Amino acid sequence: MYGLIGKINAIQGQRDVLISILMEGVQDLQGCLSYIVARDRSDPNGIWITEVWQDQASHQASLSLPSVQDAIARGRSLITGFGERYETNPAGGLGLISI
Amino acid sequence: MYGLIGKINAIQGQRDVLISILMEGVQDLQGCLSYIVARDRSDPNGIWITEVWQDQASHQASLSLPSVQDAIARGRSLITGFGERYETNPAGGLGLISI
Repeated sequence: MYGLIGKINAIQGQRDVLISILMEGVQDLQGCLSYIVARDRSDPNGIWITEVWQDQASHQASLSLPSVQDAIARGRSLITGFGERYETNPAGGLGLISI
Repeated sequence: MYGLIGKINAIQGQRDVLISILMEGVQDLQGCLSYIVARDRSDPNGIWITEVWQDQASHQASLSLPSVQDAIARGRSLITGFGERYETNPAGGLGLISI
């Protein structure tokens, strides 16, 4: 499995709009086992996305999907930058979708 | 919802043993919607745990469970320290268990 933990910084006041965009179409991501979008509790503009994919290739492939490209295009103007980013190899746990 | 993203640093060579302990009994955690244990890809001793709970109280309550206390007791000697820790309010996504 391949995992990503990453922070996105939203324009002030636009965090929830950006979160909505980030959660669109998540059901259709092939090879995606978990994808959770969360508000940082201490940073009012911070968003965390934690992802688990079957493998790195399925994550890479998702970036080419028209729905993802469209979400990126609409979300870009609401983002001031990217924060921390960690790549992982998930071992297991609770909440991974069976595919 | 209440979320945690945290890093644990294992003693060299003991990461997979610690991961096994961390994943024990995860099925029995009341109010836990997601709990994923992952290896850091760039730090050979690093473990990331990403958690989503129904609320902060259910996370707090889990720490008192005998099974969790037992895991903490056995895992403690394999840990050199704790790294980054972020608290979140998850908004949604894919892979959250329905309870």
